[in-house]
Amino acid sequence: MGTTQLETVPEPKYWHLRTVLSEALDSEFSVGEILPNERDLAARFGVARATLRQALEQLELEGRLQRRRGVGTTVAPPRVGVAVGTEQHAWPGAEGDAWEPADCATAAPPAAVAGMLETRKDEQVHTVRRSLVTNGQPVAAELLYVPLSSVPASAAADAASGAARAHAVLQGLRHLDLEGQDRAVELGSARAEDAKELDRLPGAPVLVVTTRFFARGRTAAVSVATYRADTCRLTFADSGGVEIHHDAS
Amino acid sequence: MGTTQLETVPEPKYWHLRTVLSEALDSEFSVGEILPNERDLAARFGVARATLRQALEQLELEGRLQRRRGVGTTVAPPRVGVAVGTEQHAWPGAEGDAWEPADCATAAPPAAVAGMLETRKDEQVHTVRRSLVTNGQPVAAELLYVPLSSVPASAAADAASGAARAHAVLQGLRHLDLEGQDRAVELGSARAEDAKELDRLPGAPVLVVTTRFFARGRTAAVSVATYRADTCRLTFADSGGVEIHHDAS
Repeated sequence: MGTTQLETVPEPKYWHLRTVLSEALDSEFSVGEILPNERDLAARFGVARATLRQALEQLELEGRLQRRRGVGTTVAPPRVGVAVGTEQHAWPGAEGDAWEPADCATAAPPAAVAGMLETRKDEQVHTVRRSLVTNGQPVAAELLYVPLSSVPASAAADAASGAARAHAVLQGLRHLDLEGQDRAVELGSARAEDAKELDRLPGAPVLVVTTRFFARGRTAAVSVATYRADTCRLTFADSGGVEIHHDAS
Repeated sequence: MGTTQLETVPEPKYWHLRTVLSEALDSEFSVGEILPNERDLAARFGVARATLRQALEQLELEGRLQRRRGVGTTVAPPRVGVAVGTEQHAWPGAEGDAWEPADCATAAPPAAVAGMLETRKDEQVHTVRRSLVTNGQPVAAELLYVPLSSVPASAAADAASGAARAHAVLQGLRHLDLEGQDRAVELGSARAEDAKELDRLPGAPVLVVTTRFFARGRTAAVSVATYRADTCRLTFADSGGVEIHHDAS
């Protein structure tokens, strides 16, 4: 990367620098390569450190760069496609479900979840914690909220460990006929507990997928899944039956 | 909001402050209300301005706060649900499509799009620009890439204006049988042109939805749509035929 003075341009300086840096990443750097330090980069492009940092933050947001403490800034590999909308209607924990149940507690859900489940204020629900790992990398953390009335009363009562209780609740769900589901995707920031599981700092940008599962004409369970926004792209297959390709393009 | 000194906590200070602020927003502020200025807020919570700003950025990322130049920081209304996955298989521009065609150019697409379309390097495609406005607010900006071979040769040739060319290309697409489509959602930052259309600064976080439309056993068009991440949640209906509710919960 040679010395490049930025000309005066109408767009914000950090944005122009981001474009210049992005092109340099394409042409001069390879995946995993460590970028020069901030002082050197700022000097080469003739910009203030603050401007450089803004441009690096942009490229991190776009998944082009990764910043890790103790390592520095590296060129990120292409994002991994994670299939979210599956064509088969299936309860969480059904055959082929890649999510790993880790724990289960019984507690009052957040107000927004209680609203979707139409549970009473402070009414406790099963809260199953699951995680999704791909190629050894943590990809997503999920909280699955299941009203006590959705599963047989005995389901989680006599399980020895949290993981066993989680399995029992998931199995209990399968007694219900799944009538449908819908999803919403939005930007969020990782809560402390999720951040730890995802190997990120609290507040890191995440994609939050909220899924409602319908049975007996009501919402029988709600899943709130938090995907790493830096490394993941969420893929949705349509009912057209076309295969999903997980290539990086 | 009274004076609240933050105790020493194991989690990052900005994260704890974010939680305290979030609770204050729930209990003491209403939508649209302007927050006290940064200096006053920092003093009240006994934190440095930098810590306060980090916490405010978190809450902005989560859609709880809006920061607008000349206005200050206000409490954001709940995000608006925007339906992305529709149940009917339909080409862009089909009956009931809320997107407004604005312009059409013929140009070589970005490399990633060319890869999906399997067009040759530097091969030109129709590029239709459309926008989605809900309740008078710009919600999303789209570039729809259509290879010249996907539509009749005459489609866009004799149209007088960009908007008329866009309509002609969309109409041309409907000659093809749509065999299916798939989608990917990922975090991105608004390019300068999109940012202007969305009333944001370049680099603002956006949700990028890439849709591939299949016909004749190949990818006949690719849509890259950029949704405001601060004000939108994307909703996906499942083929179960359950109605989508756009409530804010």
